Amino acid sequence: MRITIIGSGNVATHMGAAFKNAGHQIIQVYSRDMQNAALLAYHIGAEAVDHLDRINPETDLFIISVKDDAIIPTAQTLAKYQKLIVHTSGATDLGALSAVNPKAGVLYPLQTLSKIREVDFNTVPICIEGVDNDITHLLEQLAQTISKNVYRVNSDQRRVLHLAAVFACNFPNYLYGVARDLLAKQNMEFEMLRPLILETAQKVQNHLPQEVQTGPAERNDQSTMAAHLQMLHNEPQLQELYNLLSQAIIKKDNGRQGRK
Amino acid sequence: MRITIIGSGNVATHMGAAFKNAGHQIIQVYSRDMQNAALLAYHIGAEAVDHLDRINPETDLFIISVKDDAIIPTAQTLAKYQKLIVHTSGATDLGALSAVNPKAGVLYPLQTLSKIREVDFNTVPICIEGVDNDITHLLEQLAQTISKNVYRVNSDQRRVLHLAAVFACNFPNYLYGVARDLLAKQNMEFEMLRPLILETAQKVQNHLPQEVQTGPAERNDQSTMAAHLQMLHNEPQLQELYNLLSQAIIKKDNGRQGRK
Repeated sequence: MRITIIGSGNVATHMGAAFKNAGHQIIQVYSRDMQNAALLAYHIGAEAVDHLDRINPETDLFIISVKDDAIIPTAQTLAKYQKLIVHTSGATDLGALSAVNPKAGVLYPLQTLSKIREVDFNTVPICIEGVDNDITHLLEQLAQTISKNVYRVNSDQRRVLHLAAVFACNFPNYLYGVARDLLAKQNMEFEMLRPLILETAQKVQNHLPQEVQTGPAERNDQSTMAAHLQMLHNEPQLQELYNLLSQAIIKKDNGRQGRK
Repeated sequence: MRITIIGSGNVATHMGAAFKNAGHQIIQVYSRDMQNAALLAYHIGAEAVDHLDRINPETDLFIISVKDDAIIPTAQTLAKYQKLIVHTSGATDLGALSAVNPKAGVLYPLQTLSKIREVDFNTVPICIEGVDNDITHLLEQLAQTISKNVYRVNSDQRRVLHLAAVFACNFPNYLYGVARDLLAKQNMEFEMLRPLILETAQKVQNHLPQEVQTGPAERNDQSTMAAHLQMLHNEPQLQELYNLLSQAIIKKDNGRQGRK
């Protein structure tokens, strides 16, 4: 397929490369920032443009991968070409896009993508949605050229996936950083925690999180929790977080075991 | 070495097996629950006992791996044998143990261990501490027979490691469960999130968490955060958690980039 990438952020970069590697032709990369456009375009053999009036209409698909609030204005500008337009956002309804461009769809990659890190796109879940069966089918086939994990997901489900991803990825990563800072204050390296972090994630690859929960809150070990809160006495925000998460684990555990 | 295991929980089970596999002789396994003692003892070729008065004093090392509040009472009972005693707790000072048994030390495995899951002990960080140089050196050599990641750590540092492990492991696992529950309510499988969870942990194996933070809070994307809070309107506890974690990410990010 002939594909035009609108945007040069993390998703645009990784998805653009994945489509290029799968044999598709990337026609152009657009970014308001010419340097960003040029960098990505260079890597995927495309033309870089920094003005939407330089868009080449000879393409089969526009992939809009920009900030959520810029998706619809950008689609409005591209609508005159009457081509298929998809966005890559977890939080934007398909209806909002199809209202300005009837041939509309979504390719939402459910993964944390950073430019500084390579990712094997073949394992990235791609959630697709199309305005009709033909577009859904086409997007499904297209997504399957870059990933073995393709899911049909409607806009309500995608919104929930996006929220769930914050809990499963963004918040855990923040907590890794809290742990790192605690170690640094005692002159210990983050390296010591890396096996623990990896094993915690690997455990839930074959089990459900609730089956493998460990720690003081899971054991309802009040004296250890009190000692931990005492150690955080200079960090009221972390104390609050520790308390809230521990109480939630205790409550959930009680619920599961039918003790309450 | 001749080793006696006191306890039959997750740590006792995995560490006992690791020492057995490394060629040490496990003399006895003690547990108040004979069935638990017998099960572990069977796997590691030891004798099972359920009364401390049946302890065989012909051993080189007692490893006490029981609940924190039972460590010192158990050590008091074993002190008459005048052998080396170590505990495996992150939260218990070496001083508390050496007060009842002068030949004292610690072997603290910094890993999440569940009986339902095998673990490659060779990658588990083991934090050791001894009351004197001889014992420290002996424990270091002993730990190196089962792991390539052995660290000398004092009691203050170990307490911080234990707290950090709650943030790096127990809390993220709880959040995985929150994400799973959110998906289940929309008839989606936890399977969809597994690649994201794994990649989040793999990312910090080569980077620092602060370098690879992603998500709405990192972008200070207020409209997405408001939408997420709205989606959680029936779950005030999750709303509070979402808010607290998001504000912490925003604050940290501002601090790092010097914008505030």
